[in-house]
Order: sequence, then structure tokens, then C-alpha cells
Amino acid sequence: MRRALVAEFLGSLLLAALVVGSGIAAQRLSPDDVGLQLLENAAATAVGLYALILVFSPVSGAHFNPIVSLVDAALGGITWRHFALYVPTQVVGCVTGAIVANVLFDSAPISISTTDRATWPHGLSEVVATLGLLLVIFSLARTGRGEKAAAAVGAYIGAAYWFTSSTSFANPAITIGRVFSDSFAGVAPSAAPLYVLAQLAAAALALPLIRLLYPAVLHEERTA
Amino acid sequence: MRRALVAEFLGSLLLAALVVGSGIAAQRLSPDDVGLQLLENAAATAVGLYALILVFSPVSGAHFNPIVSLVDAALGGITWRHFALYVPTQVVGCVTGAIVANVLFDSAPISISTTDRATWPHGLSEVVATLGLLLVIFSLARTGRGEKAAAAVGAYIGAAYWFTSSTSFANPAITIGRVFSDSFAGVAPSAAPLYVLAQLAAAALALPLIRLLYPAVLHEERTA
Amino acid sequence: MRRALVAEFLGSLLLAALVVGSGIAAQRLSPDDVGLQLLENAAATAVGLYALILVFSPVSGAHFNPIVSLVDAALGGITWRHFALYVPTQVVGCVTGAIVANVLFDSAPISISTTDRATWPHGLSEVVATLGLLLVIFSLARTGRGEKAAAAVGAYIGAAYWFTSSTSFANPAITIGRVFSDSFAGVAPSAAPLYVLAQLAAAALALPLIRLLYPAVLHEERTA
Amino acid sequence: MRRALVAEFLGSLLLAALVVGSGIAAQRLSPDDVGLQLLENAAATAVGLYALILVFSPVSGAHFNPIVSLVDAALGGITWRHFALYVPTQVVGCVTGAIVANVLFDSAPISISTTDRATWPHGLSEVVATLGLLLVIFSLARTGRGEKAAAAVGAYIGAAYWFTSSTSFANPAITIGRVFSDSFAGVAPSAAPLYVLAQLAAAALALPLIRLLYPAVLHEERTA
Repeated sequence: MRRALVAEFLGSLLLAALVVGSGIAAQRLSPDDVGLQLLENAAATAVGLYALILVFSPVSGAHFNPIVSLVDAALGGITWRHFALYVPTQVVGCVTGAIVANVLFDSAPISISTTDRATWPHGLSEVVATLGLLLVIFSLARTGRGEKAAAAVGAYIGAAYWFTSSTSFANPAITIGRVFSDSFAGVAPSAAPLYVLAQLAAAALALPLIRLLYPAVLHEERTA
Repeated sequence: MRRALVAEFLGSLLLAALVVGSGIAAQRLSPDDVGLQLLENAAATAVGLYALILVFSPVSGAHFNPIVSLVDAALGGITWRHFALYVPTQVVGCVTGAIVANVLFDSAPISISTTDRATWPHGLSEVVATLGLLLVIFSLARTGRGEKAAAAVGAYIGAAYWFTSSTSFANPAITIGRVFSDSFAGVAPSAAPLYVLAQLAAAALALPLIRLLYPAVLHEERTA
Repeated sequence: MRRALVAEFLGSLLLAALVVGSGIAAQRLSPDDVGLQLLENAAATAVGLYALILVFSPVSGAHFNPIVSLVDAALGGITWRHFALYVPTQVVGCVTGAIVANVLFDSAPISISTTDRATWPHGLSEVVATLGLLLVIFSLARTGRGEKAAAAVGAYIGAAYWFTSSTSFANPAITIGRVFSDSFAGVAPSAAPLYVLAQLAAAALALPLIRLLYPAVLHEERTA
Repeated sequence: MRRALVAEFLGSLLLAALVVGSGIAAQRLSPDDVGLQLLENAAATAVGLYALILVFSPVSGAHFNPIVSLVDAALGGITWRHFALYVPTQVVGCVTGAIVANVLFDSAPISISTTDRATWPHGLSEVVATLGLLLVIFSLARTGRGEKAAAAVGAYIGAAYWFTSSTSFANPAITIGRVFSDSFAGVAPSAAPLYVLAQLAAAALALPLIRLLYPAVLHEERTA
């Protein structure tokens, strides 16, 4: 378990550093086109997330995401004790990662985002984005194709940055982490609760859908 | 069969939300360069389609496309009863997905596209694009490489957005769905019939070609 | 053999349509930044080539390239009779594909390129680009990893568009095909001979290198 | 061993030509947006690195990087004699590759970079970037997934160009090679020592972490 928590902490840290750091770089280097900034941010996130999941999945399952741990616990993949230890580790990891990103780009270590994006379309975007992410992860896990999860999750998130108005956080830990960087990928504290609620709603919708579409677990896929 | 229809509906819905939604985002965020918009739309579609096919292929085959179901039925892969149930499910799914995309981006839920692109080059583009798509899908299915279909179809569609003047709809359900969003990825109702006819012509060309090039089905590849 | 020649013809046609067509689209849609045009052209070519090699490799080996066929014949992979039939099929396919691209984009079916890029750096670029391509293909084929060729060749060509000043034609058939479209991906007839000579020089350099680095053929990898 | 050194030399040469050459092309073709230049440079590097690792890994392990060889030797993967021969080969290869890139783009064969980026955030960026690279490589090698290294390393480096302020050299040989091209991807000689020190510090941090997270080597993965 100690190894798993180290892996979740480091993975969540690197994920937040990736998301926030590539957002800072995009904003600084492509100041004239927000779309180009999002393309740069999405491309870096997609391929980096693929690498991070490959690195940490044999040790902890590479969740980096309380909603994923929640659904995994509800489906019997991890114990609730695991869940209770994973969630704070993921949150602290993501907050640390946002601070690391700020430091790597010579910004103030902590700055609170002022990007307030808390409208109904943003909330619905988070429901759809998170529901899709859960379908990707658990459809593969329950049909013996877990080794494809790294590529599939990276690809899905890269797409979901674009087909939602919220740019698809789909993860309460990264939502909280993003609060601590007043930059491209940041989100204001006032908007964070709506995002987390929407992500929880997606979990409630995903559970029966996953049980309907993938009723039998073919064989558990965990590399090590 | 119920699970398969749920999968085709959800997959077609998410495909249309992906195509239309990423088009809306691209148009809004990169207003100064239509090429950059298409790059963003194509990249999101390619990687998102890869993920969606992985999610739904074990349940329904992940067609999301009446032309694919038609050729599959003609080649004996699914029954004609399957075909008759799949097609309306795909169309309703894609229309719903376009509406979802509009809502996620805070537009009117339904708006009819005014992008009239119905010239001979557009029609020929749809013939070539759809023929290529059918070759990708059935070359893999008939040579025991069905597990590569998700990556291959995503990659092919990402390319076909660029090498055709119609941006490669290659799918009657998505063609109809795109009518319901007056945005980057939309198409006017007046142009839709030409597109669907061209896609049907491609199916007629593809069938003998597939039988010639891949005469024997090595072994059926269906994950679950 | 008839099936193989149909596959080489169709594959070469679609490859040229992909390269030339995506170049035309990029030039028209992103008129203000040549780098963005090349990014669009390279991305479409990389992912499209991946799909085309998957489609045709079980039938013909998916060469689409006289230099690849030449080295394959010299290494004993195909007979010289195969080679003699493949080369004209590839050239006619690529020329036809360029014409198809022109038609799909509503240009004159045939136009002769005026892009004269025939300097020593361009020639050296073609030597390096073609040598790298041959190493990619034959390192995989001779170490039992032929099923990775589609992804590796697509990725390599996408990179080589950027690290050479010639944008890496690396293929005499596509060089000749590109003559027939006066657009982004075209090349003037006066420059084509230098390119083809450089590509032949790369084959002469590649053969001893391949034999040195990959002395034993582990097992032939041909899907069907 | 002779074959391995030829492979490390050629691979390091082509890696530097790829990194420097695509940087020159990006700078020339997209002069108005530094972010777009980095996107072009990063995309070319990611997919090209994937191809180069596939080509040379069966012969030499495809390190192209003294830090990777150092950690591999410390973990018992290669002998220290191997290490002593690999490092100069990699450095000479990367310097040669930078010169080749200059020549392919018709620049002076050797020019010394004037891009001085040697601040603490740059140094910390190199520590994080190199630590991540080592985790990617050795997590896969020690869990029997070495065949995924090519894709994972390419993807990781493509991301790390973006989430670090140093654009992630993560390699002393490529750091030295980049000195010899006064272009987009160059680095001033005055900054190089900080980068190499940071990369060495990452190796010191990575070793205990790799031993903690991946204690048992499942099975060595070396294609040939």
C-alpha cells in the first residue's frame, strides 16, 4: 500500500504539473490565439497522460482521480479503505503539482485562479466529460483490455478538452489543483464546487450504465 | 440486442457531440484561421473516435454508421434484422448528439445549418472518403486484425478531413446529425441528400473490392 | 499477383491523393502561415499513411514506393519479377492519385507544379530522409516486428516532413505524382530527377547498413 | 558491441538532426508564433523519436542518452564498460546530428547557439523532465513492458517540451549537440553545464525511486 500511495501522489503531482505547466507555456508562447493555446495544452496533456498511466498503473492502478477510485470501489475493484487513502493523496498530489508548475515557469508558487467558469453549460459539460471518461476506463477494465487504458484515456481527454465548454476537468483532484494557478488551465475557487458536483453526478449515472453494458468482468487486467 | 442498441445510440450520440462540439469550440477559439479550426476539429475527432470505438465495440461492434452496418450485413457480419434496428438508432443518436453539443456550448439546442456544400467535388469527395473508410474497417475485420480498428478508423478519419473537400462525413447518420447545428461542422439540409447518395455509391463500389482483396475471412475478431 | 497489383495501385493512388489533397486543403484554409500548412499536411499524411499501410499490407506488402520494392528485392523479400511489376503500378497509381486530389478540390485535373526545389541541401535531405525510411521498414521486417510498420512509417514520415528541407518525399513514385499538381505539395519536373537520384543513393547506402545492423532475419512478418 | 556502437552513433545523430532540424524548419516557416514553432518541433520530435527507438532498440537498446545509460548501468542492465563506450558515442553522434541538420537547411555547418536559458526554473525543469523520462523508461523495462518504450518515450518527450520552461532536453548528449546550432532548438554553451548538472541530479533522485516502485525485474525485455 505504501508503494501505491507513493505512486498515486507522484502521478497526481506530475499530472497537475503537466496540465497546468503546458497551459502556462501555451499562454505565454501563443498569446494571439486561444484555440492554438488549447490545442497545445490538449496535445501535451493527451500524450503526457498516456506516459504517466503507463508508468504508475502497475503500482497503484494510476487513478490520479477520486471519481475513478470511487467507481472502482463501488464496482469492487479496490477496497473502501484503499479509496479513503487514495483520495487525499490525489488531492494533495494535484495541488503540489500545480505549485511545481508555477515554480518551473518562474511564477509565484501559489496564485489563486480568477477564471470563473460556473454556468449550467459548464456543469453539463463536466457531467458528459466525466461520464465518458468512466465509460472508457471501465469498459476496458471489464472486458480484459486494461492494457489499452493508457492510450485510450490520453486520447479521450485530448478530445474532451475540445467537445466540452469546460475543457473537461473530469477529476475533483485536478479541479482543486487548478485553483492554485492563476493561468490558462486555472479555475476560480467559486466555480470548483459546481465542477465537483457535476463529476459526482456523472459517477451516479455511470454505475448502472457500466453494469448494463459490461455485465461480466472477463478478467482483471493489472500488469503487476 | 438491447445492450447493442443502447451502445449504438450512446456511441452515435457521443460521436456527434464530439464532431459538432469540437467544431464549435474551434470556431469560437480560433476565429482567424479556418485551417487551424479544421486541425483542431480533426485532431479531436481522430482521438475521440479511437476512444469511442474501444468503448462500444465489444457491445455493438461500434458502427455508429448506417453504411458500415449496410456493408457488414451484405458481407454476412450482422443480420438484416440487426441492420434494420441499427440504422434508426444511429440516426437518432447522431441528431441527439448534435443537440447535446449545442447545449454544452450554450447555443440554441437546435439550429439548422446554412453551410451549403453540395458540388460535384464534394460528392466525389464523399465517395472517396467513404470507400476508404470501408476498406479500413473490412480489411482489418477480414484479416483477423479487428483489434486495430479503433486506432485505424480514428487515424483514417483524421486524415480524410484533410484530403477531401467535403471534410469526409462518410456516414449518413452523422450527415443528418450535422444538419442540426449551424456551426463549423454543420451542413445545410439541401446538401445532405447528395452526401448520403455519394456514401451509398461508395458502398456499392466497396463490396466487390473488399471481396476481391480480402476473399477469405481469416477469423472473426469481436472482443466480447 | 493480380490482387497485389490492385492493392499497390489503389494504395499508391490513395497515398498521393492524401499527400496532395491535404496540401491543397492546408494551403487554402491556412493561407497566412506556411508552417501551419506543413503541420496540417504532415499530420494528415502521418495518420493517413498508417491507415493505408494497415489496409494494403496483407495483400501486397503496402510498399507504394519503388525504393522500398528495390531494397526488398535486393534483400530477397520479393522476386525481381514482382519488383518489375510493382514499380510501374506505383508510379501510375501516384500520378492518378494526384489527379484525383486536384479533382476533389475542384482544380484543373492536371497542372504541372512550378515549385522548383533542387539545391544540394534538398538533395542531401532526400538521401537522409530515404535512408531513415528504409531503416524503419527493414529493421522491423528483419526483427519480427512487421506488424509495427504501419505506425512506425506513418510516424517517421510525419517527422521527416519537418527535419529535412525537402519535406521528405523519400519515394520516386510520389515524387513523380507530385509533379502533376501545382499546389502546396507539388514539385517542378526540373527538380524531380535530383530527388529520384538522391533516393537511389539512399538505397545504395541502406543495403550494407541493414545487413550490418540486422544480419539475421528472425521471422518473416506478413499478416496474410 | 561494434553493431551496438554503430546503432548508438546513428541513432544519436538522427535524434539530434530531428530535434535541431525540425526546430529550424519551424522557426523559418512559422515566424509569427513561438508557440506554434514549439508545437511543430514537439510533434516532430515525439513521432520521430518513436520511430528511432523502434529502429535501434534491438541493436543497442536505443539509449541515445548518457543519463539513461548511467541509470541502466547502475541498475545492472548494461556493464560499466558498455557505459564507458556508449557515452562518447552518443555525444559525438548528437554533435554530428546538429551539424547535419544545419547542412540540410543550408545554414553554416557549425554555429554556436546564443540562446542563454540558465535560470533556476530552467534547472528545476531539467530535474523534473529527466526524472520523468527515467521513470518512463525503467518502469516499463522492469515490468516486462519494454516493447512499449518507443511510444511512451516519444509521447513523454512531446509532453515535456510543454510542461517545463527548459523544453526538456533531459539528455546531456543532446544538450551538447544543441550548442552547435544557433537556431530554435539551440542552447548557449554557458547554459549547458547547468542543464547537465540538473540531469545528473535527476539520475540520483530516480535510482531510489525506481528501486522502491519497481523492486523486482519481472523479465528483461530486449527484442533481439
